[in-house]
Amino acid sequence: MYQEQISEYRQAFNQSKHVMVRHAKRGMKETLESLAQYVNDEDAPDLYGSGELIEGFERQVADLLGKEAALFLPSGTQAQPIALRIWADQAHTPFVAMPATSHVQLHEHNAYQVLYNLKGIMLGDEHRVPTLDDLKQAALDPLAAILLELPMREIGGQLPSWETLVEQSNWARSQNIKLHMDGARLWQCPSYYHKSLAEISALFDSVYVSFYKDLGGMAGAVLAGDADFIAKAKVWQRRAGGNLYALYPYVLAAKQGLAKHLDNISRYAFHCHAFAKVLNQTNGVQTWPTQPQTNMFRLRIETDPERFFEKALQWVQKRQVAILPPPYRVDNGLLWFELSFGDGCETLSEAQWNEHWDDFSTSVLS
Amino acid sequence: MYQEQISEYRQAFNQSKHVMVRHAKRGMKETLESLAQYVNDEDAPDLYGSGELIEGFERQVADLLGKEAALFLPSGTQAQPIALRIWADQAHTPFVAMPATSHVQLHEHNAYQVLYNLKGIMLGDEHRVPTLDDLKQAALDPLAAILLELPMREIGGQLPSWETLVEQSNWARSQNIKLHMDGARLWQCPSYYHKSLAEISALFDSVYVSFYKDLGGMAGAVLAGDADFIAKAKVWQRRAGGNLYALYPYVLAAKQGLAKHLDNISRYAFHCHAFAKVLNQTNGVQTWPTQPQTNMFRLRIETDPERFFEKALQWVQKRQVAILPPPYRVDNGLLWFELSFGDGCETLSEAQWNEHWDDFSTSVLS
Repeated sequence: MYQEQISEYRQAFNQSKHVMVRHAKRGMKETLESLAQYVNDEDAPDLYGSGELIEGFERQVADLLGKEAALFLPSGTQAQPIALRIWADQAHTPFVAMPATSHVQLHEHNAYQVLYNLKGIMLGDEHRVPTLDDLKQAALDPLAAILLELPMREIGGQLPSWETLVEQSNWARSQNIKLHMDGARLWQCPSYYHKSLAEISALFDSVYVSFYKDLGGMAGAVLAGDADFIAKAKVWQRRAGGNLYALYPYVLAAKQGLAKHLDNISRYAFHCHAFAKVLNQTNGVQTWPTQPQTNMFRLRIETDPERFFEKALQWVQKRQVAILPPPYRVDNGLLWFELSFGDGCETLSEAQWNEHWDDFSTSVLS
Repeated sequence: MYQEQISEYRQAFNQSKHVMVRHAKRGMKETLESLAQYVNDEDAPDLYGSGELIEGFERQVADLLGKEAALFLPSGTQAQPIALRIWADQAHTPFVAMPATSHVQLHEHNAYQVLYNLKGIMLGDEHRVPTLDDLKQAALDPLAAILLELPMREIGGQLPSWETLVEQSNWARSQNIKLHMDGARLWQCPSYYHKSLAEISALFDSVYVSFYKDLGGMAGAVLAGDADFIAKAKVWQRRAGGNLYALYPYVLAAKQGLAKHLDNISRYAFHCHAFAKVLNQTNGVQTWPTQPQTNMFRLRIETDPERFFEKALQWVQKRQVAILPPPYRVDNGLLWFELSFGDGCETLSEAQWNEHWDDFSTSVLS
């Protein structure tokens, strides 16, 4: 029905000159050329995880997260089940707890169960951040590890309070349960907590971070923890087929993205919070959470889907401007969107985006 | 003892102006710049395995191998256990047979067992190509699949005869046992068999090929087979963390490597065979096999290791020319090398290489 409309809208969105969400898009040529400028003529590629560039970057990220060691892997889907399996082997129990909305649970074809032989216990209610009580309830099974996601993508980038997080960390340690962080978007957290990346990571035994979301890299992830954990992770990385002959395009793009975006994320969050206020003043439009905590939120629009996509497509094609990405869900007269703020929002001024929204909501939603 | 000498030799080898084995080395900058020239300004990256470039390349390789479908993955270590697991699930048995020198057996920390829950049966004698009888013997267990490696790297690139291969394929089909090809170096086989890649692949149910060995790519592999097999492989690729946000640097380098090297491999083999004859005329020097079948062989030199590395280092440093790579094994007064021929051997003429060898063997070996 409207699947085709969404596909047309996606195309118009991708071809727009100004796109508010995420980072401004780059083609392959531009990216490759910019990576080439980032290295010298004599710089040799990495070889199966060894080499100055990759080892130096692992050191840089380990230091940033205040951990003893770090390992670069092709993806988070590879990194996280590896971390959980290491903790499970060490604790001699296959049980690991995680929010039901965890990437590990939703988007990896159950690799943690099927490939890594783990058993998952869901933490609390899928629509909110887990509480300390949720952790205690999950630990009725002998847990090896608990995965917490900071911030929680599927509920609009929400975070537990700092006090809750410290309590949860203390409690897990008292129970000899390892705490693993899904920090795919950890970069968004320091400005909310007023804590450094290392202070936040200190509450966790292992940390996964990603480079192609908030940091605009190409792909790739890092696992960080103590040296023994990382030594074991290297064996599992090899097993999973992630110890590649060369990883340098990903490492270079990650390094470049870190330098380019990390210090600006609090500014993207500022734009994000201001724009959420504007959206919430529109009839039938509601952000989740109402006051975003990071530089992302989810957005619910109550409207007729077919009419919406017809009008939205015309609007975007005419102006070459896109505010809303394609929806991730259309259901019962509700359209759901994820808005994550990168440097795209700085391609126009705040006033200009507000004007565009005013025009969009008048033309498309009323 | 001589570990340090080998490490020094490796450095001198890497810094030599002319290196006979493999392809001429390229730095990161040169590679990235050459990939950038291979795309147009408007070309968009692939996204989780979708996109014109990656799908077009999969189509190209599927056609080359005469298979219905193909899937690009980050590594062979990821590709092969996936293929074996799919056949095992289909046959409802965990048993798969392979040569004891298979990469799956030697270099993957037993991923096929630990991650993929398979059980391996070793085929025949590790020092030779498996016979039809070896396959029949292995099938005393209920086999899901047999892995054959063409050519067999760890025994100097040896191949079964075409007749043997056809017999083995016919027999496996008659037994409902799937035949999987470890074709990491399949590109070397057409000139030996006088058969096309598709004719060789037609004897197998699934084929893995690699792009960073003979083809000089950056990393990456393709699995090819029927459409149902590839649909299943995509699920396992996701599970193993290989369905990356972007894979284009690997795809571009693979495509470039295929265009650059595939048609030249028979010429590299010609140089390889000629040089093996020269080597075998030297006292204490012996290639394995004596007459190479592909563009690689292994080399055994009987000599005192410490004296060899001292003299070899001086020789290489003085001339900036390297014939022998660092040895893969030093044992009981025997040094073992792997010589694989790419475009490196064409940086000097055959006569020049022969002169260099004459000088090297006189200075270092006598």
